[in-house]
Amino acid sequence: WKIALLPGDGVGPEVIAATKSVLQVIGDFYDHDFQFSEHLIGGAGIDAVENPLPQETIDACLASNGVLLGAVGGPKWDGQKLRPEQGLLGLRKAMGLYANLRPLQVSPVMAHRSPLKKEIVEGVDLIVFRELTGGVYFGDKGRNDDGSAYDVCSYSIEEIERVSRAAFKIAIQRRGKVTSVDKANVMETSRLWREVVTRIHAEEFPQVELKHALVDSMAMHLIQRPRDYDVILTENMFGDILSDEISVLGGSIGLLPSASLGSGGPGLFEPIHGSAPDIAGQDLANPVGTILSAAMLLRHGLGLEDEAASIEAAVAAVLAAGATTADLGGELGTRAAGEAIIDAIR
Amino acid sequence: WKIALLPGDGVGPEVIAATKSVLQVIGDFYDHDFQFSEHLIGGAGIDAVENPLPQETIDACLASNGVLLGAVGGPKWDGQKLRPEQGLLGLRKAMGLYANLRPLQVSPVMAHRSPLKKEIVEGVDLIVFRELTGGVYFGDKGRNDDGSAYDVCSYSIEEIERVSRAAFKIAIQRRGKVTSVDKANVMETSRLWREVVTRIHAEEFPQVELKHALVDSMAMHLIQRPRDYDVILTENMFGDILSDEISVLGGSIGLLPSASLGSGGPGLFEPIHGSAPDIAGQDLANPVGTILSAAMLLRHGLGLEDEAASIEAAVAAVLAAGATTADLGGELGTRAAGEAIIDAIR
Ligand SMILES: CC(C)[C@H](C(=O)O)[C@@H](O)C(=O)O
Ligand SMILES: CC(C)[C@H](C(=O)O)[C@@H](O)C(=O)O
Repeated sequence: WKIALLPGDGVGPEVIAATKSVLQVIGDFYDHDFQFSEHLIGGAGIDAVENPLPQETIDACLASNGVLLGAVGGPKWDGQKLRPEQGLLGLRKAMGLYANLRPLQVSPVMAHRSPLKKEIVEGVDLIVFRELTGGVYFGDKGRNDDGSAYDVCSYSIEEIERVSRAAFKIAIQRRGKVTSVDKANVMETSRLWREVVTRIHAEEFPQVELKHALVDSMAMHLIQRPRDYDVILTENMFGDILSDEISVLGGSIGLLPSASLGSGGPGLFEPIHGSAPDIAGQDLANPVGTILSAAMLLRHGLGLEDEAASIEAAVAAVLAAGATTADLGGELGTRAAGEAIIDAIR
Repeated sequence: WKIALLPGDGVGPEVIAATKSVLQVIGDFYDHDFQFSEHLIGGAGIDAVENPLPQETIDACLASNGVLLGAVGGPKWDGQKLRPEQGLLGLRKAMGLYANLRPLQVSPVMAHRSPLKKEIVEGVDLIVFRELTGGVYFGDKGRNDDGSAYDVCSYSIEEIERVSRAAFKIAIQRRGKVTSVDKANVMETSRLWREVVTRIHAEEFPQVELKHALVDSMAMHLIQRPRDYDVILTENMFGDILSDEISVLGGSIGLLPSASLGSGGPGLFEPIHGSAPDIAGQDLANPVGTILSAAMLLRHGLGLEDEAASIEAAVAAVLAAGATTADLGGELGTRAAGEAIIDAIR
């Protein structure tokens, strides 16, 4: 198995290093030959070769069985022509990663850390399906002669169909409920979104319960009654906002993994948290989000269910025992937190 | 003083009726001649004259000293060519209302109703400044021959300048902090937004503290530490989403007012809540959001500070005494809740 590692910026290199150690132990234990390679992305790419997404990185990712990313971005590159984020956005496009999955479960152990009341968040179990290669992210954009600026948001029928199918398929394996989020009372792309999702549902997945919600009222309901949701399906920008909103419900964004999948090719796996430049290089970052992303890589990317489950069980045990980094009130550094998980796997 | 009333749809007529009674009592008490007129908007306009925004309504609003709106929309008009929302969007444009203000204060009396922990929300005191006549709401939109859809988001320098100035001016009267929200790592309109806000700040309001935040991380921070914010300034769509997210922090959306202001002409005042078709016509809706919107109309529209303060004091007294509608755990109907406030004013 070829696993491409993209440490990136800020705390990225530290969380990737801790996760690589976990994957090596899993490889030894289950007798898999994981071949790791490291590549430049984001600010690291800008600094080294003046390119946030070198061709070498794209080639290596496409030739891999799965890509594990740390984080990109930071104030260091603010206001410059080359932006670290271009590396990540370009890679999503180059790998055809049209669905970003962010699962969130709020366990009784973690519920008290939430900014929400325990009785509202305990037992939350949802997954966000964010469309990742369309919308305003990849539309035409620029400035006009009069100094005004524009961004075009566009969606094709096929783009909506494929991500809807992916979401409905996952819903069948879960509680069978999809909430599709749009702004159909204002946006034409949202009206198309609603039409296509409704048709795919009726034609191919009538057994799933489908509801539509407006993005503004969804931003409210996610705080008022997050337990009501199972699969949340939405377009790129709304998904960016809502999945970040959701990510704090569990009380620690440092724990959350994500997977970005296309059709057939390798997937990209990364923690939800950003590059956190303020704590970079200090052995303070929580590696759990990246380690759980590696578990998603093993499951979705390599089909190694037992191996993924063994990482997840180890993480749950370590968290329950309170062996955590400072963001969760513990005393471990990044490396030690990774080693605690390795001990639990062993 | 001419006050134009637009009851609209769902619970709109009930909350407007209760609020009109309050305004009449204020008029008698302070010896003002308030002249009320009622006009069609939204679904009510579609049903009566097949127009969500009759010209008569626009004319009456422009000739008034202030407009008080109930709510527009409802499933009854879903999927039809004429949409109730067009009435509201058209009126914002026709009246040149470029700034939507939504204040939120979380008092100790209300903090326990919040889905957030009391220690996180108690003492929140912020105001959202949402740009209201630009962005994706009013850009070109449509379908292409291949069935794909598009929406254009655009902003001119002037549009950003005027709403920024309005926000900085209010900040000076408050705690002197503005957080401007954009998605400058992805959108060109956001990069222009950040440039213009930064320049207006440096040139005209250097005494205000200005910070920039990305919309996705703002969606998180508003839940984690809402007390950090004073004035939040953002574009139309991000403002729609974030202000709805914020509206639940206080525990009851039924209490919240809003004001939409332009330069010079009359303003539009309306509760945050929607038309709530499920409880319409049953004397169940909470009239407080509309009554507090009327207080904003008196203050911002007519310059009647004492009259506004007297309504706000009456509302606070009634809430503290628990004389509320069912959404706040009380037993009063819409009309009785309005009368309780009238009694408190007297
Ligand atoms: C870094 C940025 C461009 C990116 C996005 O907006 O997609 C990030 O916020 C994310 O959600 O992965
Ligand atoms: C009704 C709708 C068009 C409107 C908007 O999105 O602006 C509403 O959500 C609001 O916030 O006033």
